[in-house]
Amino acid sequence: MDLPIYLDFNATTPVADEVIEAVQPFLFAVFGNPSSSHRYGRIAAEGLAQARHQVAQLIGANDDEIIFTANATEANNLALLGVTSALSAQGSARRQVVVSAVEHPAVMEPAKHLKTQGWALEVLPVDAMGQVSEELAKRVVGPATAIVSVMHANNEIGTVQPVRAIAAIASDAGALMHTDASQSLGKISVNVDDLGVDLLTIAGHKLYAPKGVGALYVRRGTPITSISFGATQERGLRPGTENVALAVGLGAAADLARRTLEKTGEVMQRRRDNLHEQLAELVPGLRLNGHPTDRLPNTLNVSFPRVDGARLLAACSEVAASTGSACHSGTEEVSGVLASMGIPYEHARGAVRLSVGRSTTEQEVEKAAVALASAWRRLVSR
Amino acid sequence: MDLPIYLDFNATTPVADEVIEAVQPFLFAVFGNPSSSHRYGRIAAEGLAQARHQVAQLIGANDDEIIFTANATEANNLALLGVTSALSAQGSARRQVVVSAVEHPAVMEPAKHLKTQGWALEVLPVDAMGQVSEELAKRVVGPATAIVSVMHANNEIGTVQPVRAIAAIASDAGALMHTDASQSLGKISVNVDDLGVDLLTIAGHKLYAPKGVGALYVRRGTPITSISFGATQERGLRPGTENVALAVGLGAAADLARRTLEKTGEVMQRRRDNLHEQLAELVPGLRLNGHPTDRLPNTLNVSFPRVDGARLLAACSEVAASTGSACHSGTEEVSGVLASMGIPYEHARGAVRLSVGRSTTEQEVEKAAVALASAWRRLVSR
Repeated sequence: MDLPIYLDFNATTPVADEVIEAVQPFLFAVFGNPSSSHRYGRIAAEGLAQARHQVAQLIGANDDEIIFTANATEANNLALLGVTSALSAQGSARRQVVVSAVEHPAVMEPAKHLKTQGWALEVLPVDAMGQVSEELAKRVVGPATAIVSVMHANNEIGTVQPVRAIAAIASDAGALMHTDASQSLGKISVNVDDLGVDLLTIAGHKLYAPKGVGALYVRRGTPITSISFGATQERGLRPGTENVALAVGLGAAADLARRTLEKTGEVMQRRRDNLHEQLAELVPGLRLNGHPTDRLPNTLNVSFPRVDGARLLAACSEVAASTGSACHSGTEEVSGVLASMGIPYEHARGAVRLSVGRSTTEQEVEKAAVALASAWRRLVSR
Repeated sequence: MDLPIYLDFNATTPVADEVIEAVQPFLFAVFGNPSSSHRYGRIAAEGLAQARHQVAQLIGANDDEIIFTANATEANNLALLGVTSALSAQGSARRQVVVSAVEHPAVMEPAKHLKTQGWALEVLPVDAMGQVSEELAKRVVGPATAIVSVMHANNEIGTVQPVRAIAAIASDAGALMHTDASQSLGKISVNVDDLGVDLLTIAGHKLYAPKGVGALYVRRGTPITSISFGATQERGLRPGTENVALAVGLGAAADLARRTLEKTGEVMQRRRDNLHEQLAELVPGLRLNGHPTDRLPNTLNVSFPRVDGARLLAACSEVAASTGSACHSGTEEVSGVLASMGIPYEHARGAVRLSVGRSTTEQEVEKAAVALASAWRRLVSR
């Protein structure tokens, strides 16, 4: 039996051929510890340095502003907990953390943890399209704000946030700005100076690199301390022997994304829009969730009428997709993101996230639309 | 030019062929997110489950007692900070942490961090062979002790600690016992019930798995909380999308170690002892650092008279070894481990750590001994 058509690129991507090629020697032949002074170590350290440069290039950063981590969750934790810890140690009076209502648990949970440690937590609501309001941010962010964390683009609905505007508000208030760019990197342009952010999270496995590697961009001069303790790797911010091979993979993936972004973004958008059109034709009453235009080019979150999204996907063995974040799979609840947007339960329960990738073909899109529509008809005609 | 003879297996190991084979499909073809409900996700989750079982088997644990981490540093941090955090949350009156004087920074630094947070930190001294004394441990560990962390075997000198005896003392006092087994796994037998430990740290890249993966054994019922925050992976103890491919690699490495331990341990010891004999013959006044018998079969830490160890290695391009922990390479200080043992400065400065591996040949050992001895003669005759 063939594998189903993969329309879950927001959950994780396959590894690009160019990345496979780059990873191989560092996984196997080049096995030195980058901290070793001898030749084995130096060759490994050079690979790591090149990867750091490639990641920095993708987002317009300096090499020394890239800290490799195990994944985006660790990068988000380092950003929120590391910055607040540094500010505390400096005796800063800023004790407020501001996040959006649609953050991934990897931002929301560290923020909630800070609340248990005596920090004030302010959650910015989103509108019906999933966007944070600049006006509200202006009212909330102020002299007490330590850090603002608003994701670049949402994982479930693809809505792109006005990060640049929010970062300007944070900057005006003397607060630091973090954005989780896990979903936007490789899909739309991401530049730390354009966005005006101090910290930015990178996820390898959403960017055609393997699972098990991520990075945090930390602008020079940003107050931050490590949140785990050991030797002095990654400028002391992330102790532990470096994940050389997968960091090299992330570097290669970043390089590939930088070179091909424009073309792949256009192709993904065409596939996504065709998928939407075909589904809308076959499924009367289909509703788009998220912003119609300020949205990742690969993401289509649609509510099928009168069905449960998880049951629809279970009934459609030809397609691999999800109802929301992969991290939430298996739970029965309606997506918190859709709830935050005020989507009524009867629509939210029918939501399915279809995310295309660089390799998605027109044929796959057509087959998937037909398969999903016929599964939907079987369910509603029962 | 040929690469130098690698005698730095305690810094990091090459990746075993069996591990390479196991990793490949999970790095490339099997790319699903283990949290996804569809088939791509389930195949990845199955690989992860098998790897967990293989790691558990190596140390005599249950599968659900293995938490995959990015490396041993993270596992040590999770053990020390996670247990103390859980005990605090329970309102426990135990506020003392006990470690040995020769712990790796990945244990010592989290312990020192706890001290800054109001915990009492007691450091057990070691004797001239690097061993912790049971009598002293008995006097220090008591009703106030939360956790005792004593490494299984030291990374620099190879001395094996009386972990079983210390664990019994901890248990009698109602304290938890952690051991960092990064260096001992795959070299000597490691069984969590024989050792009587509650937590045990595993490093992939010392065990012929790639860098970038480790694990923490957590005995069922041990109070522990996560130290980073996000979704619910690894029973909520370690959020973030799993490093599937490298975890599978760690599983394969564990399986290989379990099957070949006895034979490889003997071969490594023969190589190590031959290296020692040949060096002792060629270098009058050579001194062994560490325990003569309670020692890892692959580790030889020797002090060359009247030279600096780092300069000796720099003068011997035929051999890749180190003066101590790879994490400390590039610093000028004498090893803290040797200082803790009371080794006088004039001996400690000449220390070199030579660590053999499964693949080390008799020919390599002979060549290395001759090369090191002649580099030493060049330096002392200047």
